[in-house]
Amino acid sequence: MDDRVREHADVLVDWSARIEAGDDVIVQVDEGAHDLGVAVAAALGERGANLLATYGSDEMTRAYLRAHDGDFDADPEFERALYERADSVLSLGGSRNTAAASDVPGDRRQSYRRARTEIRAARMDTDWVSTQHPTRAMAQQAGLSSEAYRDFVYDATLRDWESLAEEMDQLKTLLDEGREVHLLGEGTDLTMSIADRVAVNSAASVAYDSHNLPSGEVFTAPTATEGTVTFDVPMTVDGTRVRDVRLVFEDGEVVDYSAAQGESTIGELLATDAGARRLGELGIGMNRGIDRITDNILFDEKMGGTVHLALGRAYDACVPDGGNDSAIHVDLITDLREDGRLLIDGETVLEDGRFRWER
Amino acid sequence: MDDRVREHADVLVDWSARIEAGDDVIVQVDEGAHDLGVAVAAALGERGANLLATYGSDEMTRAYLRAHDGDFDADPEFERALYERADSVLSLGGSRNTAAASDVPGDRRQSYRRARTEIRAARMDTDWVSTQHPTRAMAQQAGLSSEAYRDFVYDATLRDWESLAEEMDQLKTLLDEGREVHLLGEGTDLTMSIADRVAVNSAASVAYDSHNLPSGEVFTAPTATEGTVTFDVPMTVDGTRVRDVRLVFEDGEVVDYSAAQGESTIGELLATDAGARRLGELGIGMNRGIDRITDNILFDEKMGGTVHLALGRAYDACVPDGGNDSAIHVDLITDLREDGRLLIDGETVLEDGRFRWER
Repeated sequence: MDDRVREHADVLVDWSARIEAGDDVIVQVDEGAHDLGVAVAAALGERGANLLATYGSDEMTRAYLRAHDGDFDADPEFERALYERADSVLSLGGSRNTAAASDVPGDRRQSYRRARTEIRAARMDTDWVSTQHPTRAMAQQAGLSSEAYRDFVYDATLRDWESLAEEMDQLKTLLDEGREVHLLGEGTDLTMSIADRVAVNSAASVAYDSHNLPSGEVFTAPTATEGTVTFDVPMTVDGTRVRDVRLVFEDGEVVDYSAAQGESTIGELLATDAGARRLGELGIGMNRGIDRITDNILFDEKMGGTVHLALGRAYDACVPDGGNDSAIHVDLITDLREDGRLLIDGETVLEDGRFRWER
Repeated sequence: MDDRVREHADVLVDWSARIEAGDDVIVQVDEGAHDLGVAVAAALGERGANLLATYGSDEMTRAYLRAHDGDFDADPEFERALYERADSVLSLGGSRNTAAASDVPGDRRQSYRRARTEIRAARMDTDWVSTQHPTRAMAQQAGLSSEAYRDFVYDATLRDWESLAEEMDQLKTLLDEGREVHLLGEGTDLTMSIADRVAVNSAASVAYDSHNLPSGEVFTAPTATEGTVTFDVPMTVDGTRVRDVRLVFEDGEVVDYSAAQGESTIGELLATDAGARRLGELGIGMNRGIDRITDNILFDEKMGGTVHLALGRAYDACVPDGGNDSAIHVDLITDLREDGRLLIDGETVLEDGRFRWER
C-alpha cells in the first residue's frame, strides 16, 4: 500500500474528524475506496473507536432506484436510528465509473432524496467528513494518468492544514464584517447580501465546522441574490455533464436558467423544492495545492482564486438561526482567475485569482 | 451480468427472505459480492423494500482488529440500534482471499466476538439469510476453475426448494419423534440426546426457520453428548485450515481434542466461553445439488449424506426454552458416506450416504 494512503487515513481520523476512543464511527466505503477503507479501519482500531462500514455503491443505488417505481418510505427507521446515534460519518469517495448512475431518471433521484431528509439531517449532525480515494475513474475524469492523479490528490490532501487555516482566517474576518458581495466577470454581475452571516474557515476539520478533506475554502450563506452568474467551469452533476450554466436571480430566487450542456439536469435540480432555487453557499477557494480543474467538486471548488455558489441547503454553521433549506446542495464554480473580481462592500478582495494580501 | 446472478437475487429475496414492500433490509456486501449486491438492490427496489448496504470486508476487519489493542466496547449503540430495527439482514458472502484474516490473533478475534453478543442476537432476531456469490477466491479454495465453480454454486442454489422441503420433512419427523442419535464411523462413536427438541427443515427460507441459501439440511440441537467424533472433512475455520479434528465428549462437554492440522485454532475456539465446549447443532445434509466438498461450510454441510456438528450457540428454533449459548457457532463435518451410520433410537436412518427411503 502507498504510504500516502496511510497518511491520508491518519489526517482524516485525527485532523479532520478528531476521532477519540469510544466514538461510534460509520465509514462509508465507495466501490473503489477499499484500500483507503483498510487504512481507515486500522487508524480507528488504533484509536479505540467503534467501526461500522457501509457500502457506497453507485451501481447498487442505480439498480435500486431504477427498479423502485412507487413512493419511497420516508426516512426508514433502521437507518435513521443508526445515523442519529453515530458520532462521526467518514465518507470515502472512490468511484469506478463516474457515469454509473447517469441513467437514473432525475425525478426518481429527487423523490428519493426528499424521502431521506431526516436521515440526511441526522448525518449532518454528526462530525461527518467526506474525502476521496484516487481511483482510475476519477483520474480519467480529470484527464490524468493514474499516477499523476494520485500525486494530485495527495498534494491537495496532505497539506499543512494549521498554517492554511491561519491564512484563511483573514478572508473569514472580511466576510464576517462585510454586508454585500459583488461578483464581476465575463457573463457574471451578481450581488448578494452576507450581513449577519458567519463565514466558515474551512480548514478540513470538524473543529473548524469544515467537513471536506481536502478543503481550503472560506464560505458563507448569502441571501437576496440579484443579477446573473455564469459558471464557466465544466462539471459532472448527478452523473451528467454540465457546462456554461447561467442563472438569473431576482429577489434571491432563480427566475431564468440556461446551459450549453446538461440544461435538463439543472432544470430538474431547480424543481426539487422551493429551496433549490435559492443559494445556500458562497465559497472562495484557497487551496493552492489544487492547481487544475479535475471535474470533481470536492477539489475544484477549493482551487485557490475560484468562486463557487451552491443551490440549495445552507450550512447551519453560517446561519445559526436557520438558513435556506432544501433536499439538495449542488455547487457550481465560476473561475474568476482571468478578468474576474470579487468585492466586499465595494472593496476588491480577489482579482484575477489573487487575494489582496497576495498582490 | 450472468442471468443466474439475477435468479439468485430473486430466490434470495422472495423464497428465502420473503421480503415485502416497506421492509427495512440490511444487505451486507462482501468485497467480492458486488455483482450480487447490484442484483439484490434491483430486486429490493422492485418489491418496494428499504435498503441499507453494509460492507463486509475481511481486510478492513483484519486491519481494525490488529490495530485495536485495548478492550472492545460492548455492543456499540449505533450498530445495535440498526440491527434491532431491521426486518431482514441479507449477507452476501464473497471473499477475495479466504486467508485474508488469518493473521488476526485468536484471542483478539474472540474478545471482539464476545463484545458483540447483543448485536449478534439482534441480527439473529431478524429474518436473516446468508448466501454466497461465486468468487475466484472461493473457486480456488474449492480447487475448481471459476466457470466450474459458478456452475457448482448455482446448481446448489437454484433448486426446486418446495420439493426438497417435502423430502426433508420425512427426516424432520424422525428427529422430532426420536430421543437419541448415535453416530458410528471410522474414529466416531458418539451418542446425543435429542428428546424434546424441534428439528428444523432447513429449506433455505425464513418461512422454515432456515437462514442459509443454499440450504438443504435438517438440524436439531443435541444435549448430553458422550463419546468420540472425528471430523474427516478438511475445513477453513477463521481463515485457518483444520483437518481431522477429533473431539471427546463427557457429560455433554468437550474434555479432550486433537487435530492433524489447526489444533491451536480449535483450542482457541473451545476457550471462547463455556458454551463453546458444548454442541449447538446436529445437522444432516440433504442437498443432492452439492456433490463435492469445496471447503466452504455453507455448501459442505448441506451435501447429501454427510453429518455435521456445531460447537457453540444453538438455534432458538430447535430449543424454544433456550438452548446452549455461546459467542461462537462453528460447524465441523464428518463424511459418513463410506462405512458410516446414523441411528435414531437404534434404527438406522442413514447408511453409507443413503437415507432409509432412498435404499
